[in-house]
Amino acid sequence: MDFKTIISLTANQCGEDQNRIRLILSSFFDVVKSEIASGEKVKIPQFGEFTSKVYQSRTIVSPFSDGPKKIPPRYSVKFKPSATLKNQVQDGY
Amino acid sequence: MDFKTIISLTANQCGEDQNRIRLILSSFFDVVKSEIASGEKVKIPQFGEFTSKVYQSRTIVSPFSDGPKKIPPRYSVKFKPSATLKNQVQDGY
Repeated sequence: MDFKTIISLTANQCGEDQNRIRLILSSFFDVVKSEIASGEKVKIPQFGEFTSKVYQSRTIVSPFSDGPKKIPPRYSVKFKPSATLKNQVQDGY
Repeated sequence: MDFKTIISLTANQCGEDQNRIRLILSSFFDVVKSEIASGEKVKIPQFGEFTSKVYQSRTIVSPFSDGPKKIPPRYSVKFKPSATLKNQVQDGY
């Protein structure tokens, strides 16, 4: 399902304008993103928890290349689904 | 940062009532959760993508116990952060 349809369903459920929903969600995710980026955990009740994760830079030595090779650090975001969400996925199967 | 503060910041940014924001987010995540649970991918632009994941049931034989042991299936949700979000995390470091 694309984001447009999700917005439209949410708007119907709340009796709110679609553009307004879009604006509110955009503000909400801006706050969430800047929190995650500043290294804070973000927990959305009944949904799950986001944390940032850094895979440190490291040096590998491959037998097939000459000399050691440096792998740059990698940045990502982990999501831990809530028990509610996992149960809902289970019920869907 | 707790969810209450995130709601309050979002409300300030949009000039909207906190309870209204809470209601809209709750409707939004209900739609997202039921989509994930029905096996659909949910992509939130500039944020990331959610997909449900099943780890199939399997039988293991541990040398320390008697007989094979059946591990039940496990249900989870995967999150793939968008490039935007990953870059933001990187800039935060």
